[in-house]
Amino acid sequence: MTALNKTEDKTTFPKRIALLGSTGSVGRQTLDVVRRFPDHFRIVALAARSNVTLLAQQVQEFQPAFVTCFADVPEVAELARKELPGVVLGEQGLLEAATHADADIVVAATSGLVGLKPALASIGAGKTLALANKETLVMAGHLVMRAAQQANIPVLPVDSEHSAIWQCLHGEQGNEILRLLLTASGGPFRTTPLEQLRTVTVEQALSHPTWHMGPKITIDSATLMNKALEVIEAHWLFDVPYDRVEVVIHPESIIHSMVEFIDGSVKMQAGLPSMHLPIMHALAYPVRLPAARTELVRELRWPDIARLHFEELNLALFPCFRLAVEAGKRGGTYPCALVGADEEAVDLFLQGKIGFLDIAHLIETVLEQHQSVEQPDVSTALEACMWARRTVRELCQKLV
Amino acid sequence: MTALNKTEDKTTFPKRIALLGSTGSVGRQTLDVVRRFPDHFRIVALAARSNVTLLAQQVQEFQPAFVTCFADVPEVAELARKELPGVVLGEQGLLEAATHADADIVVAATSGLVGLKPALASIGAGKTLALANKETLVMAGHLVMRAAQQANIPVLPVDSEHSAIWQCLHGEQGNEILRLLLTASGGPFRTTPLEQLRTVTVEQALSHPTWHMGPKITIDSATLMNKALEVIEAHWLFDVPYDRVEVVIHPESIIHSMVEFIDGSVKMQAGLPSMHLPIMHALAYPVRLPAARTELVRELRWPDIARLHFEELNLALFPCFRLAVEAGKRGGTYPCALVGADEEAVDLFLQGKIGFLDIAHLIETVLEQHQSVEQPDVSTALEACMWARRTVRELCQKLV
Repeated sequence: MTALNKTEDKTTFPKRIALLGSTGSVGRQTLDVVRRFPDHFRIVALAARSNVTLLAQQVQEFQPAFVTCFADVPEVAELARKELPGVVLGEQGLLEAATHADADIVVAATSGLVGLKPALASIGAGKTLALANKETLVMAGHLVMRAAQQANIPVLPVDSEHSAIWQCLHGEQGNEILRLLLTASGGPFRTTPLEQLRTVTVEQALSHPTWHMGPKITIDSATLMNKALEVIEAHWLFDVPYDRVEVVIHPESIIHSMVEFIDGSVKMQAGLPSMHLPIMHALAYPVRLPAARTELVRELRWPDIARLHFEELNLALFPCFRLAVEAGKRGGTYPCALVGADEEAVDLFLQGKIGFLDIAHLIETVLEQHQSVEQPDVSTALEACMWARRTVRELCQKLV
Repeated sequence: MTALNKTEDKTTFPKRIALLGSTGSVGRQTLDVVRRFPDHFRIVALAARSNVTLLAQQVQEFQPAFVTCFADVPEVAELARKELPGVVLGEQGLLEAATHADADIVVAATSGLVGLKPALASIGAGKTLALANKETLVMAGHLVMRAAQQANIPVLPVDSEHSAIWQCLHGEQGNEILRLLLTASGGPFRTTPLEQLRTVTVEQALSHPTWHMGPKITIDSATLMNKALEVIEAHWLFDVPYDRVEVVIHPESIIHSMVEFIDGSVKMQAGLPSMHLPIMHALAYPVRLPAARTELVRELRWPDIARLHFEELNLALFPCFRLAVEAGKRGGTYPCALVGADEEAVDLFLQGKIGFLDIAHLIETVLEQHQSVEQPDVSTALEACMWARRTVRELCQKLV
């Protein structure tokens, strides 16, 4: 069909990858993709926080030109020096990896605040940025997207929801978007009455029905904080105002998200829940690699998707969602305070020090007390986040 | 997001439209779209078969430069001459409309065989072809697509299934398609046991659960002949081999079709069942017009799509489907004989002269007797079709 042919592809493989956060969940799955397509990808830099043993194995397998271990802990540093000859230590190493001369694309898959500076540095160095770190856009979307636009650098989503939206937008025009519709499984407590949420255990909150992830993001999925952070990310990535980013509950996690256009047409992207596909799509873009029906991307079969359900989000059950989207809309350093408060509160919940509903209470109190700064630079953003962590700890001590 | 911006749009409006088959279902809905967007579209030619009264109203409203009535019936011609000053009569008028100097785009929405020559003529005249007529590609896909390719003319689908696939393919590469998945409501007899199909009445067969269409296409939907014709069309439109065009039953008709790519990603297009959207998409492409939440394209609301079902197609219930896809695969003039046999058999069923299951029996017998010609030209294709119609009538007389 003549009309839909893309312009001839000018992508050259292998693409050379700097992988930040190589020992985490997204990092390990990124290496699965690289392992499966050795002619298409080459690892030139690996960065991990503290899992030196796994990092050493990865270095041996992928032989990167540069390796860094960025944990600020003397014992880890010592082990890293012993196990990884030539290793660069600390935050400086992470920045060097993000701007490595040999890298074409930087996969930003560290968790938490540490990803912000390297993401900005990689854009500054002209690298394509494949972004898996939520905090980066939530805290500093205005800085990241402005820098990317000025440098004409693509920021490619790695999250399954944003990858779905991105795929639905291939060949479409941004100004023809009517709504972005992020799907949410609803987590383990979608149908739990509010009064029972008070006594939820850590174990219950960690049993996500469709996705297997780390503990912080699993709790964030149970509170729907994670979905709200995705709303904020979508706002920045696709330049769509908040009132046109919606969430719909879809318990099966088969439809990863949707876009409604101004003509009323709705496009959806689907697949079994797996991070390999969105990772691969960001790495290989604009090319699609033959991964269907392999262990990397299993087939979507009719028995699997015989029934797909959709429901409206019940905001009363998910106070964290409402608080977080509100913080996104208010802007300034509110989203930074949100990220800090949530990190600390989830940590306290995982330690068994507070109840499930206290997470939302603590975040709400912190946001009420927060003095927001408009258009924060990186250090102001990080300070707001740190202030929120401290404030949660102080509030919690008063609680106990 | 930098990566997904389309190149700046160079479409100029208003687009000037020659509408072939203006009084049929797709023709009338095309005029709804034009009526809603008078700054975007202008009707320069109208062609209808025999509904002179409606055609005259349309002429008055849209003031085309050219009008033709192509029924080969003296009474109709006489009425047309009276009601429509300057009308051109007969097949020649249809060809003139299809190649009208003022037209940018030809909407081919006549039903049956009559659409084939004007479609080819419009491509020859350098017009964009928006194709709603199934027979054209089923009987002469090899001629139409070759001509379009040589002239670098886009053939744009108007059918909801093909429009869905086309939309999923925007910004994608044809060689990265793994499967096309056409959805089928399954019609009124999806769950009817085979033995009960023998005694189905015309009325039962005409009550389609989700789409309101003309009688011929409604019966073709009940036998799934229509879906098989769509498989053949999809094969030609998107240049995908038959073994990678599949059909899945989806009773709600919300997901209009899907594409699976080689990386395992599945894209779907959705909307309430309505022809206005696919018509508008073909007319306005590559632009999307703001029609969402108007009477033209109603909103897809969660209560409407709370549950979406998918099932495998039970071939045993739909012999017409199997016969038709087989005819498509065999090629030559088999699809032409298929079209003729089906037209005649459905006509006989609608007249109450044969039973529902006789449709498949007659088609099967005709295809068995058919002497196929490879790479038929237009007149050979039409002859094969006429031969099949005659053969069905002869077989039927023997039956009676």
